[in-house]
Amino acid sequence: MSFQLGENTLKVTPKLFAENRTRLIDELRKKVSHSGVVVLEGGKERFRYNTDFDDLPFRQESYFFWAFGVHESDCYGIIDIDSGKSILLPPRLHPDFAIWSGKIEPESWFLEKYETDEVHFNDKDTIRDILHRLNAQQILLLRAENTDSGSILEPAEFEGKDEFNIDITTLYPILAELRVIKTDLELEVLRYAVQIACDAHRTVMRNIQPGYYEYQMESLFRHTSYFHGGCRYFGYTCIGASGCNAAILHYGNQNSPNSKKLYDGDICCFDMGPEYNCYTSDITCSFPCNGKFSEKQKIIYNLVYEANQTVFKAAKPGVRWTEMHILAERIILKGLKDAGILTGDVEEMLEKRVGAVFMPHGLGHFVGLEIHDVGGYLGDALPRSSLPGLKYLRTTRTLKERMVVAIEPGCYFNDTLLDKALADPELSKYFNNEALKEYRGIGGVRVEDNVVIWENGNENMSADLPRTIEEIEAFMGKKDDNNNF
Amino acid sequence: MSFQLGENTLKVTPKLFAENRTRLIDELRKKVSHSGVVVLEGGKERFRYNTDFDDLPFRQESYFFWAFGVHESDCYGIIDIDSGKSILLPPRLHPDFAIWSGKIEPESWFLEKYETDEVHFNDKDTIRDILHRLNAQQILLLRAENTDSGSILEPAEFEGKDEFNIDITTLYPILAELRVIKTDLELEVLRYAVQIACDAHRTVMRNIQPGYYEYQMESLFRHTSYFHGGCRYFGYTCIGASGCNAAILHYGNQNSPNSKKLYDGDICCFDMGPEYNCYTSDITCSFPCNGKFSEKQKIIYNLVYEANQTVFKAAKPGVRWTEMHILAERIILKGLKDAGILTGDVEEMLEKRVGAVFMPHGLGHFVGLEIHDVGGYLGDALPRSSLPGLKYLRTTRTLKERMVVAIEPGCYFNDTLLDKALADPELSKYFNNEALKEYRGIGGVRVEDNVVIWENGNENMSADLPRTIEEIEAFMGKKDDNNNF
Ligand SMILES: [Mn+2]
Ligand SMILES: [Mn+2]
Repeated sequence: MSFQLGENTLKVTPKLFAENRTRLIDELRKKVSHSGVVVLEGGKERFRYNTDFDDLPFRQESYFFWAFGVHESDCYGIIDIDSGKSILLPPRLHPDFAIWSGKIEPESWFLEKYETDEVHFNDKDTIRDILHRLNAQQILLLRAENTDSGSILEPAEFEGKDEFNIDITTLYPILAELRVIKTDLELEVLRYAVQIACDAHRTVMRNIQPGYYEYQMESLFRHTSYFHGGCRYFGYTCIGASGCNAAILHYGNQNSPNSKKLYDGDICCFDMGPEYNCYTSDITCSFPCNGKFSEKQKIIYNLVYEANQTVFKAAKPGVRWTEMHILAERIILKGLKDAGILTGDVEEMLEKRVGAVFMPHGLGHFVGLEIHDVGGYLGDALPRSSLPGLKYLRTTRTLKERMVVAIEPGCYFNDTLLDKALADPELSKYFNNEALKEYRGIGGVRVEDNVVIWENGNENMSADLPRTIEEIEAFMGKKDDNNNF
Repeated sequence: MSFQLGENTLKVTPKLFAENRTRLIDELRKKVSHSGVVVLEGGKERFRYNTDFDDLPFRQESYFFWAFGVHESDCYGIIDIDSGKSILLPPRLHPDFAIWSGKIEPESWFLEKYETDEVHFNDKDTIRDILHRLNAQQILLLRAENTDSGSILEPAEFEGKDEFNIDITTLYPILAELRVIKTDLELEVLRYAVQIACDAHRTVMRNIQPGYYEYQMESLFRHTSYFHGGCRYFGYTCIGASGCNAAILHYGNQNSPNSKKLYDGDICCFDMGPEYNCYTSDITCSFPCNGKFSEKQKIIYNLVYEANQTVFKAAKPGVRWTEMHILAERIILKGLKDAGILTGDVEEMLEKRVGAVFMPHGLGHFVGLEIHDVGGYLGDALPRSSLPGLKYLRTTRTLKERMVVAIEPGCYFNDTLLDKALADPELSKYFNNEALKEYRGIGGVRVEDNVVIWENGNENMSADLPRTIEEIEAFMGKKDDNNNF
């Protein structure tokens, strides 16, 4: 067993990663002529600045994790394409490790835990020697660019690297594409992480009330996820936005640390996702902190929820994600028109990108070992748009079975965006400023599910949440008897 | 006000950092002839590997924080020694920041919050222009080596740096030494962080019982610290060791992630410390998870607690920390001899470093903006010893008023260390192997307080904890009525 934390949490089998490696080998055999060998470098332990400690311990790099499932730091992994064999190379630990950090396990322990074909502690020439033994004609290294941030994951470094023929371009698109399509074993872990997210969101909804601070609800969410679900890490910083803060998409960071008090009448837009065995969830629940929607909150909530549901039904294999974004925008624009906030032709507003004033972010993204999972601009992706809203789409691909996507339409009243739109005659003509004023300061609503794309109907992994206004109000009406947290 | 999280948490005044800057200027005026200017670079936002997110948001670099108290990332700070003026340079944010991350505050907002003399957004030539305006003859940059890990904090980089006369050696020892001696305003924050640590440890002790997992108690500790104390960050990874794991000093890391179940009879050695406004606590409580010490646990606990109390009383200004380490070892060795585990002359065993078999770590360290705070080998420090135990001392200095130290004697039954000692005839002759066998697997005990050194008697900031065996058993006997966490 490669991972479990507590007897009531999910057991993860090392077969998950063995299967991933097999898939990688199968793909590489189609592209690489002969005697090609993959060398991957795992994450290195890092600390705060120049200190020797940090708040949370090491978290594995996701590409390495996908291939080996290894939680320990400073490892390497080798995959021989010809023989199909995999070799794990944990660091040879200093004997003092046993005093400070835990038992020094033998190679056999790693072999049993992670089920690679071989395990060797990594001494100065271990990798070089193995590569010569395998008669490696070509070494495939991973150089991975993040298509959202542009950040680069640099290729593995090792002793004797210059003795080999190095290829840093073949591996990335193949490995990233394999990460896009989830196996049954991966889906099992993702379903578990999403279930824990749903449990924690429900706990917050049952216990929240005006007077608490946003950060206290973050704390309750994290505690529920870890105490009951074994989720020590989170896929991203918890967003515990309330009231006007709900219009700030990545609220909760160091400039806005979930520090506001919850006031009667505030909407909450809580976007929080625990990670289990490095697979993350990414779920947003929007609800009034007092348990009863105002009439205006109902209007905004319903148009967002309708967008979420419509996309869920329309997002099928073969459908382009960009179209889904436009579909969500259309529903939101129509809803805002019905509410009297916008006026004019919806298709014309779509064309003019009025939708991006209210939903500035992309409709969603892949989810997996990262919240914004890789591969969004591989395959049949269209080039990144430069238009408002569309430029933030993290993928423009057509959907396929076993893709896991976050569907997260939202509608926000962000002063910066609204003021900019009102100052632009091309856009301001669509706005009913008097009606808009009534909604300013209301914040925003996002309804985010994690969904597996299937040919015969999608699977909403987060279906186990109260989502309609009636469900939410009924659910929040039943307070936990025992809310001594 | 530079920081508060929730109305029941501590208000931190920007005067704390203004006073720190004044102290720095006063010291620098003694060393730097004229027209010297300090330039400090704050921490930069960083993410997991090549992604664009992380579990927790940015945490400021501690030297920069000491001088400016600024929580936001990517800032610079300038201090003009001649005029005594300080200038804060926050980054000029992209307008889209308002959509994604929060309101873009004007320079006046930073001025009011942090009370520097000037605030300017940092454009390409801002720093260069300011330095020319100040007619800077010498630029003092911080190059700080961590004396435990050897890691380097690199000097600030900025446009036009090569136009100036740069000094990277003067600032470090002065700034680090100032961090060693805490002001009243700093002590107020440290007392608060320690108080929250004590509250959270007590909550764990009141609710723990066999059957829970170690990580569940970590979760309860973190939740109590954040929910009730506003502590979002922790000074280090929570150590939730139980049973034999209590002999692993930095248990709780990725190789040993607090994953053991608590069994009846297990000792707990819980070393956990929340951070408030970047000032951390570092507190260890040792207690039996079932609330009743076994006879053997009592023996080990009492000798460690006696070492803790004796050091607390003996640690006065002018006393060398190394002597305190030896004092603690002497008490532990005597206790182990009384217990029949060791045999022979205590002073001889001290000389032979038998103490380091049972307490392999140093007695303690400075505490402040880092758990292992800076300056341990400045001042009148003796060179780092190469002897067992003593080589891990994080300081060898004599004590001064306003130093804050963690006093953390411990006694552990670590198989690796015991086997090594028994295999060495020079050491094995002191061991009663039959008696020792009875204690193998018992784990270990550490009693760690955070203490301010004062001329007229030290201040134990963590005095508010049950510490004697009687106190602990009485306290743990009263279970919380309402332990629905
Ligand atoms: Mn999302
Ligand atoms: Mn300590």
